[in-house]
Amino acid sequence: MSRQQAIQELIQCCDRERVLTSVEDLACYSFDATADMAAQRPDAVVIPVNTEEVQAVVRICGKYKIPLNVRGSGTNLSGGTVPLHGGIVMTMQRMNKIIEVDAENLTATVEPGVIIQSLNNAVAPHGLIYPPDPGTVTTATMGGSTAECSGGLRGLKYGVTKHYIMGLEVVLANGEKFRCGGKTVKNVTAYDLVKLFTGSEGTLGIITELTVKLIPAPETRKSMLALFDRIDDAGKTIAGIIAAQVIPATMEIMDRTTIETVEAYAKIGLPTDAAAVLLIEVDGNPISVAKEAASVEKVCKQFNGKVQVAKTDAERDKLWAARRAALPALARKSPTTVLEDATVPRSQIPAMLAAIQEISQKYNVLIGTFGHAGDGNLHPTILCDERNAEEMERVHQAVDEIFRVAISLGGTLSGEHGIGSAKMKYLEWELGATGIDVLRRIKEALDPDYILNPGKIVPRGN
Amino acid sequence: MSRQQAIQELIQCCDRERVLTSVEDLACYSFDATADMAAQRPDAVVIPVNTEEVQAVVRICGKYKIPLNVRGSGTNLSGGTVPLHGGIVMTMQRMNKIIEVDAENLTATVEPGVIIQSLNNAVAPHGLIYPPDPGTVTTATMGGSTAECSGGLRGLKYGVTKHYIMGLEVVLANGEKFRCGGKTVKNVTAYDLVKLFTGSEGTLGIITELTVKLIPAPETRKSMLALFDRIDDAGKTIAGIIAAQVIPATMEIMDRTTIETVEAYAKIGLPTDAAAVLLIEVDGNPISVAKEAASVEKVCKQFNGKVQVAKTDAERDKLWAARRAALPALARKSPTTVLEDATVPRSQIPAMLAAIQEISQKYNVLIGTFGHAGDGNLHPTILCDERNAEEMERVHQAVDEIFRVAISLGGTLSGEHGIGSAKMKYLEWELGATGIDVLRRIKEALDPDYILNPGKIVPRGN
Repeated sequence: MSRQQAIQELIQCCDRERVLTSVEDLACYSFDATADMAAQRPDAVVIPVNTEEVQAVVRICGKYKIPLNVRGSGTNLSGGTVPLHGGIVMTMQRMNKIIEVDAENLTATVEPGVIIQSLNNAVAPHGLIYPPDPGTVTTATMGGSTAECSGGLRGLKYGVTKHYIMGLEVVLANGEKFRCGGKTVKNVTAYDLVKLFTGSEGTLGIITELTVKLIPAPETRKSMLALFDRIDDAGKTIAGIIAAQVIPATMEIMDRTTIETVEAYAKIGLPTDAAAVLLIEVDGNPISVAKEAASVEKVCKQFNGKVQVAKTDAERDKLWAARRAALPALARKSPTTVLEDATVPRSQIPAMLAAIQEISQKYNVLIGTFGHAGDGNLHPTILCDERNAEEMERVHQAVDEIFRVAISLGGTLSGEHGIGSAKMKYLEWELGATGIDVLRRIKEALDPDYILNPGKIVPRGN
Repeated sequence: MSRQQAIQELIQCCDRERVLTSVEDLACYSFDATADMAAQRPDAVVIPVNTEEVQAVVRICGKYKIPLNVRGSGTNLSGGTVPLHGGIVMTMQRMNKIIEVDAENLTATVEPGVIIQSLNNAVAPHGLIYPPDPGTVTTATMGGSTAECSGGLRGLKYGVTKHYIMGLEVVLANGEKFRCGGKTVKNVTAYDLVKLFTGSEGTLGIITELTVKLIPAPETRKSMLALFDRIDDAGKTIAGIIAAQVIPATMEIMDRTTIETVEAYAKIGLPTDAAAVLLIEVDGNPISVAKEAASVEKVCKQFNGKVQVAKTDAERDKLWAARRAALPALARKSPTTVLEDATVPRSQIPAMLAAIQEISQKYNVLIGTFGHAGDGNLHPTILCDERNAEEMERVHQAVDEIFRVAISLGGTLSGEHGIGSAKMKYLEWELGATGIDVLRRIKEALDPDYILNPGKIVPRGN
């Protein structure tokens, strides 16, 4: 059988110990962090240690026409790294060298297996930060978060992963490698291939090296919690802060379901009678931080918010612990946590929040909503039990409707989780048949045999 | 002849008066702002007024397999809008409506023919700016500058065009249209098609509508001029300012040739005995501006710079008039001005400046260098006479060597002018044969018959 021959060739090209085939090992690579998604075992897992091995693996998969599913830590939330059609999983975690920190050019060059937090630890002594901060900074890899173009809490002011990827080395489906971009702040040489591969979810090529942009760490920061009796007032506050021309580093929202759950879980003194809280942080130099914090406080009060300002680092840490507890706290309440990332223009947040409440009632499902209010990126989170088929049917209908509403409000299917396999069925709502045709043409131009991560983003043509 | 039939069909689809065929009209659309580039007359010029007409024109060109060269104001500097193979020029200048300024979401939506400055004028009453500022802001169009991904003086702090394009409506080579991106700050739905079409120089599709990001206008700003006796000290100052963690809005350099020429032309009191000047502007809130200006001044003095701070708006305007006079002043000195945009990592600016001086001597050509030092984007400008074949041979050798050095220093062929036809021959130096193959596959996936702007960026395959 050709898959067995391919595995033999993989063993010849990498060490035997870096080609995993036991049932136990394969089970570990049969799923990712996405809920409500069937696991699928690969035929083998290979762990390359350099670009040449990656090229050899790609060529073997191409020769035998076997799916090649590349992954980092598998923290993604749209089924992007589940090996839907079996084949080979290639995990990049052993390619984890920080090759260079170039403080003069404000860049770092890393292998794809470097953990995001490790990079931040390495650049901190230079007074620099790598701003993208998905919730999984301590586990997610640079390669995985680039392939998924992850976002996080600081997107409003600092942008997301794609804004920080300056150069890539990529191995193509035919096994050839090339470099695009580099250390220059400006580069308009031909098509923006760096951006094309960033967020392509492993379907167009394999990232084997990355050069990223760093920025000076903000001098100081100030965190505030604002409580609202009406969710509508929270929405108006978000718009009001931007209208006051303050761009906070983060502006997070939690609804009552989330507040109650977090408080029950973490007991940090959140007021469970508030309809919504906003958690806002401004950063920069001390003077502008003081000024922006005052503006934020004023706008919050204008819309009936009760404001608490963190006076110490300990108080600040407590506030952010509450926000970071949102997902684990919600996840603890029920066996299955369906976490979505429907995203709307900022001005439509009140409408989206209202729609989510309606959808929750209509389908009788429990939805906790939290997320990055400043950039319109909400995380409606449905608490359910995947063993209950009748309930899951209602959950699926609710999810469908959440995305339908997001699109109708001028939003997008994904603010930061990607399309993967979980959201492929909605793609036409946003891009139309013509847009999907464009995606498919690009996919087939670079990977005509659908070797790389098949079944993700682009449905195979006929 | 099929081209004549095509023109008849164009006249039927658009008004007769919007299809130009006179020799005088065609001559006006036979060149762009690029020097040392042969003019080529199109067969006709068509001026659409809406997306449906654009689609009809594309379909006619596709039917007759005639080149379609789309342009705005033709200010580009890499031969991108010269109709190399004749055919149809489609100028988008009549599609010039500002469709919406959405202050709440910090976006504007425009047709491609809107002039960049017109957009800035429209958003100014909201206290907002559209930051990309190529030297041609008062003439270049939003569509043209997006297709070319133009840069400008504020790239270091604010980024370039691609960082501000959020959503596009695009007409494809097959005449179909679709939308990608939108008003959400975050969007990771499938491949980043917005970024793929941005900077694709009219070779992949035609932009018929754009949604762009706006930002709050900086409260205040401070401009400084620093004079250096040694160009090397200017280079160290650039690196030193970034090392001091100040990111100026602009940090421009002019070498002695440029200073002398500007002073002879504009008589604004520049010291013609300086080896180099840096022109630096910091912006933001008044307190941080004062602090950053003090840091900049300190670093300049540390490297033997003499600093003049603009104390009034009039003084500031005078400083910037000097910088903006660089190109016109140089252009006035000789019949032909070959302006390049070789770009290197910021730390390599001293090496690049030294190399340009050597190249100038080696080939006995006069080169004035100015440009965006903060982002490594220099403009070595060769003053010559295109009627002098022997001199032009030396000029071409000098240009070749400038790009060879830029690449060897980890730089790029183009910081902001694009590849067009002028730099195609160098493309392999940066992207290799594999990279060019990737470009060609994408081009042929979206425009298999090379209808859209043929002869630009991607050499046609066999």
